[in-house]
This record gives sequence, structure tokens and C-alpha cells, in this order.
Amino acid sequence: MASAESHQGTAPRAGQPHIVIIGCGFGGLETAKALAGEAVSVTLIDRTNHHLFQPLLYQVATAGLSAPSIAAPTRHLFRDQANLTTLMGEVTHIDLAARTVALRSGQVLPYDRLVVAAGATHSYFGHDDWAAHAPGLKTLEDAFEIRRRILLAFEAAEREEDPVRRAALMNFVVIGAGPTGVEMAGTMAEIARHTLPGEFRRIDPAQARVMLVEGGPRVLLAMPDELSEKARQQLEKLGVEVRLNARVTGIDAGGLWIESATGQPAPDLARHRIESGCMVWAAGVAASPLGRLLAAQLPEGDALIDRAGRVKVTPELTLPGHPEVAVVGDLAAAMSHVPGKEPRPVPGVSPGAKQMGRCVAANIRRTLRGEPVQAFRYSDYGNLATIGRNAAVVDLATPMGHWRFSGYFAWLFWLFAHVYFLIGFRNRTVVMIDWASAYFSFQRQARVVAGGEPAAHPDA
Amino acid sequence: MASAESHQGTAPRAGQPHIVIIGCGFGGLETAKALAGEAVSVTLIDRTNHHLFQPLLYQVATAGLSAPSIAAPTRHLFRDQANLTTLMGEVTHIDLAARTVALRSGQVLPYDRLVVAAGATHSYFGHDDWAAHAPGLKTLEDAFEIRRRILLAFEAAEREEDPVRRAALMNFVVIGAGPTGVEMAGTMAEIARHTLPGEFRRIDPAQARVMLVEGGPRVLLAMPDELSEKARQQLEKLGVEVRLNARVTGIDAGGLWIESATGQPAPDLARHRIESGCMVWAAGVAASPLGRLLAAQLPEGDALIDRAGRVKVTPELTLPGHPEVAVVGDLAAAMSHVPGKEPRPVPGVSPGAKQMGRCVAANIRRTLRGEPVQAFRYSDYGNLATIGRNAAVVDLATPMGHWRFSGYFAWLFWLFAHVYFLIGFRNRTVVMIDWASAYFSFQRQARVVAGGEPAAHPDA
Repeated sequence: MASAESHQGTAPRAGQPHIVIIGCGFGGLETAKALAGEAVSVTLIDRTNHHLFQPLLYQVATAGLSAPSIAAPTRHLFRDQANLTTLMGEVTHIDLAARTVALRSGQVLPYDRLVVAAGATHSYFGHDDWAAHAPGLKTLEDAFEIRRRILLAFEAAEREEDPVRRAALMNFVVIGAGPTGVEMAGTMAEIARHTLPGEFRRIDPAQARVMLVEGGPRVLLAMPDELSEKARQQLEKLGVEVRLNARVTGIDAGGLWIESATGQPAPDLARHRIESGCMVWAAGVAASPLGRLLAAQLPEGDALIDRAGRVKVTPELTLPGHPEVAVVGDLAAAMSHVPGKEPRPVPGVSPGAKQMGRCVAANIRRTLRGEPVQAFRYSDYGNLATIGRNAAVVDLATPMGHWRFSGYFAWLFWLFAHVYFLIGFRNRTVVMIDWASAYFSFQRQARVVAGGEPAAHPDA
Repeated sequence: MASAESHQGTAPRAGQPHIVIIGCGFGGLETAKALAGEAVSVTLIDRTNHHLFQPLLYQVATAGLSAPSIAAPTRHLFRDQANLTTLMGEVTHIDLAARTVALRSGQVLPYDRLVVAAGATHSYFGHDDWAAHAPGLKTLEDAFEIRRRILLAFEAAEREEDPVRRAALMNFVVIGAGPTGVEMAGTMAEIARHTLPGEFRRIDPAQARVMLVEGGPRVLLAMPDELSEKARQQLEKLGVEVRLNARVTGIDAGGLWIESATGQPAPDLARHRIESGCMVWAAGVAASPLGRLLAAQLPEGDALIDRAGRVKVTPELTLPGHPEVAVVGDLAAAMSHVPGKEPRPVPGVSPGAKQMGRCVAANIRRTLRGEPVQAFRYSDYGNLATIGRNAAVVDLATPMGHWRFSGYFAWLFWLFAHVYFLIGFRNRTVVMIDWASAYFSFQRQARVVAGGEPAAHPDA
């Protein structure tokens, strides 16, 4: 019979501004943390019960780490922040005029300040039917599904008697050569070449083909040319077939169609078919539909939404005309404002989301104290991407210019950077054990698929 | 274009007896291991891709361990056993006359020797509709589902505004007080009392009620009276309400109906309703349907099947009239044969399954060498059950009689016995870290639920 006020006596507390944060990715988490100790009451709403350390999600998908190693219960992360309430639920509506947020459960929460950090999901460029055949990688569920498909493709190949179908089952295709696509392809090649050989009796997993299909002219488009080229070389050394300028025109249960993204293909090359037992979509990202829902209530309407579905925010990361509503992270088309310089777009990386969260929290504090708010300024520390065993590229922004390196030392740098940022999770020890053991044994520790029947295969 | 024979050159090899093992639980695994190095070719078929260390499955269900900690890929376990092929698939038929096994994929495998180790699943005593409301705990999927329900019941309670519904959501009911039910109830009480308090703002998780409902007169019926009583006392100390002699007569989405299993209840006590947000079924076990499928092809018919659906095997653990077909583990109603003594039934515990597996493998080896087969003899080392933090009961069979103890030292004994038997899994280190950290911090490391929407709740 505990009532809302009886035993914990926390948010929303009468008289204190009520701040609602939607989403517990890097942006929402950082906003919430930066409000600790303030005389506000904060409600943090998320669809899941955990904060996900997304940069390592591909390790869960490729059976290197277990889910709890990269996911921490939100409620536990904030147990000591007395001004914050965690609520698990899905936001179905935001009413800017009434200043309320509605949940799928029917609950309606009033807010004084709203921070929308709902992130992004996959975009199939209008081909939503492709999702069933080539899942993307954004949530733990996605990661389990991809893990299941990779491992069960080898199991199906081992069962398969027909050599043509068997070869098709062992074609793995990753679509999109951004950081996720490159990590996935590199790690899948490692699994095929190093982890599985010796365990099968009819197939040779090392014969598996891993293809990385990219519509653009190079991999890791956000990286400088030279590092893109290094990354491509390292991918090929790991055994990945990189296909650049290749546009996907169709995906079905048994494979995909690609065509040249440049020039005029000869009629017989117009559509090229690749049979595949496991396809992963790492090509398109679309911001949460909450962006359009907000824009529809503003005079600017959809003009406020960019091509990727993101909200074009003010320099202070708020909605035009609504300084009480901020948008941060992947849902925001934000600009970095350095006095005396042209505003520059903020890249969609986790440091960007975290910095936006801290900026919004700082502006909330300033408003409470009657100080003027400040524009967002992005500090760029560079960019890094891992490719696979001993392979990574690093583009480090330093006061003395950019340091660019690749290969083993870049990989070590990537490793320690990620373990460092895992601080705050219990899991650093376990992640280190798993990685050290994976590195020396070539084994992967989470090769477990719950359930039995392969559901996602051409032969199922 | 690897063909069946081309690059690994293994089972089934022409001229060697082909041994098919169905199921990779303790019985099947032990049979397979004991055939290493023999001039036979072995095919090990399992519905999943892993061997599950079932005694710790309740830890996955209660968010203490992650799945890979207690599940090892079967294929990897046997990578160095050259005479063995692993096949992931579901057996849909066994033809005793033709000596073939058919898989759902359509594949048909001939065998010279067959070992059926297909285990058991939940039995709802004819009320299969109860399964949706009170899942049982046999597979990793079951464990994830139960974990989801436990954690999301607290989340739903935190969202719930109505105090009556909120209290109902925080009623946890475990049905059946065998080892699994006792472990589940004890651990759920620990979560409510020690893990979650302080993390919620509207509810007090320590107010949650955990009920253990048992139709029989005491908990842990396989244990001696005095240890049952100790276990009950320890459960109540942990905060579990133990209801003995209580028969479940109905389960729906919102709770269950129980009535007294003894005496004549007064009309108003005939059916007693308990509202609950999370129910777990640990009451009934039924052997795999493959048992009846085998019996139907024998002159004895269903007379060969006992009340629990198990196959009454010969002293050598084979089918009457079919010495080439053995049944081991939970699917076998086996007797222990000690010369000069009355045969005694073998309990359904993992040492029993493992010993049966070794006996069947030894008899296969004897047959190959022209030696006579031997009857199964069960070595009873006793029985142990854990209840929760610092609480367990141990009934140790020693040459000097039974040693019986309970409490902290029994719990330490249980702990080390289980870690010892995890040898062969990579996961001992990780399990020890998780347990040590859980013990000292009262935290549980796997409190992660994939996906969002609570699907299994009265309010969903």
C-alpha cells in the first residue's frame, strides 16, 4: 500500500520543476546525470530497462560478449540520484501546448522541461519488407537475432546435402560500410576463419564468404580518405570481400540484388544476384518518429525535419519557440557554435550525444538561476573504428593537428578507449576476461542461441 | 564445394557402426564423451546449439548469471572428438524396424545403435492453458521469459496508480516446492528484499510477497523429513510464505486459485484466490513424447510408459527386444541393480543421467568387443539443494552413513560442488566473479530484459 509520497518521497515533488527525459541512450543518460543534486524532479522514461553501451553491441551480435556485459539496468545506475525516477514505458504522444507526455500504458505526465533523446532506428529507404531478411543492429533483440542467424546459417549448411544451397548458406552479406558494417564484416570473417574451423564435419567454415556491400565509393565515409583505404585493406586481409559503389535493389529470404551505383551498367550486369544465408543491414539510419510528431505541432512543420528525420534545433538544442523542449543525440540535427566561426554540423557519434546532454542540463541549471542559456559547442576528439582482430583505424584530433594511425596499435587504442568508457558498468572485468580469452584462444564466449528451430533461413 | 567426405573425413564412416544420440543434456553428453576414441561414428542431435548446465538455470531466470555462463556450444565441446558429428535439429520420428531417425528438416539418418536422451519438459497435468500464465523452467528461453516477468512486474507496479492492482503485481507465486521451486522462491525473495530496494520511488520492493505453493505436505519431497523442515525454516527466514498441502485448481492472467489438498474444506474455503503479477510453474515434469513414440512400436505398447511418461527400460537401459536402442536420463524409468539386492528406482538427478550415459557407452564398447553387457548400477552420492543466500540443505551419502547439514556450510558446499562441475565450461571464472560480486554487493549482474513492452502482465 505504498503511496507515491509515502516511503521514498521523491519526484515529482511539489514546487520543483518537473523535467521529463525521453530515452536512455548516451544523450538522455548524460542529461539525467548532469542534473544530479539540482532542485528539480526528473523522470527518465525508456522503452527498455537498461542503458545500452551501443559501441560494443556488435560484439553481442557476433557472440563475443553476453548481453549483461554491455547493458546496465537504468534503475540501478540511478539508484543514488534521489531527484530522479525511472519509468519503463513507450512514449506515444507529446502535447507541446498542454506540456504533457503520454505513455502506451495510458499514463500522462505533465512536464515543465522536456528533453527528447529518443535516438534513431534502421531505415530501409522505403523498403520495410527488407527488414525481415536483413535485420539491423540497434537493440539487444537485434543483436540476439543476428547472432542466431550467423550461428544457425553454419548449422543449416552442415545439415544441407545440396552443395549449391550449402554454399549459399555460407555467403554472409553485410550491407553498408559505416562503422557498424565494418565491425560486423570483420568479426564475421574472424569467426569463419578462426573460431569455427575444426568443429564441423561436412563443411569447412573457412570457406564461408563474407561480403561487405557499400553504395558509396569507400568504406567508413566519415573517416579521411587515407584511413578509409587502410580500413579496406585490413578488411580484405581479414578475408572480407569489399564491394564499393554497389547499390542494393532488392532483398528476399534467399539473397539480394545489387547493381552498380555509378556509370551505366551493361544490361546483363544491371542486376546482380547474390545468394545468402545471412544478411545484416547496416546501411540506413532514421531518427525516431517523435521528431515528426513534434514538428507537426509547430508552425515550421516538416520543414523542421532533415532528410534523416532529425529535428533542426536552435543553437541551444531546443525547439524553435519552445525553449522548454530540448532535443539531443541522434534525433537532433545540431550545429556546433564556436564564436567567430561558421556553425558546423555535429556528427552522430556518442561523444556528440553526451556533450549535447550536458549542454542541455547546464542550460536548465542556468535558467533555474536566472542566467542566460548558452549555445552548444561540440568538442571533436576525433574518430575511431575497429575492423577486427588487431585491425582498427584512428583519427585523433589533437591541439597539434590530427594523428592518424591504423593496424595493431590503433586496435589497442580502440580497445582501451572502449574499456575506459565502460567504467560505471560492473562488467569491465568480465569484458576484459572475455576479450583476453577470445584473443588468445580465437574462441568466442557467447555462442549460445536460445531456442531451437532456425526460423530465418531459406530452408525453414 | 566441400562434400561429406572431402575435408574432414569423419562420421558416418563406412564400415563403422553408426551411433545416433538424441539429446545433449547430461545423459546424451556423457554417452557421447564416453565413446571418444572408439571405432564408431557418432552423430549427436540436439534441438539447440548448446549443452545447458541445468542446475544453474534458475540463476539465469533470476538475473544472477548470463546465459553463456551456463551454456556451452555442443559443437565446440566436441571439436576434438574426431568420431563425432554434431547436428542441430529436431527429431520428429524414430522407426525401430527400419532403424532410422527422421528430423524436422526432412533428413533421415540410419543408425546401428540409438541412444535416446531426450529428457523431460513441464507438465501442467492436462491444463496446458496454464503454461501461458505460469511458465516453467527448462530451457534458456524459459529462463529469459521468467527473468522478464519478474523484473517487469516491479516495473509495472512502479507505473501502476491503483494500490490494489499495485499490490497484486508485487505478489510472486512459485508453484511446486521441488528443488527448482525452492531455489526460485528463495532467490526471488532475495531480489525483493536485498537487490531492488532503494531503486524505486513509488513502490517498496521489500513489500513484495513471494509465495511457494506446494500440493504435498512438505518442501523438497526427495529429501529426508528433517532437511525438508530445515529448508522450510530457511525459506521463511528469507521471507518466503510457504503454503503446503495447497493444490492449484486454476491459473489465469491475473492470478491463481488454490484449495486445500487435504480434509474437507468449508464451502467458503473451497477455492481461494491469489492475485499475482508473476507466476512460475515448478510443479510437474513430463518425459519427452519420444518415449510414447517408441512404445507405440513395441508389443508392450503404452504399458511400457510410466505415469510420468518415462520408458520402463531393461536392466541394461535398453528397449525390450531392441538391445540396439537405449534410453537414458529423465526419459528413462530406470532401476539400479546391485547383485543380491532388490532393484531400486534411479532418481531424476544429473548424476543419475550421467551414470546411465556412461553405462550405455560401456555396453556399446562391450558389444563391439564381443563381451556381455552389464546391468545399470546407480551410485548414490546423496542430494543437495540450495535455497538462497547462505541457505541450503545437504544429504550426503558416505560409506559411514548419511551426513545431513543445512545453513551456511551447506550453502558453501553447494556452491563449490556446482563450480566444480562447471569445469569444462570457460565460465567458471566469470561465474565466480559474478557470484562473489553478487554476494558482497547484494546485486545481480544480469538484470537485463531484451525488448520493451511488457507482454505478459495483467495490464498489458
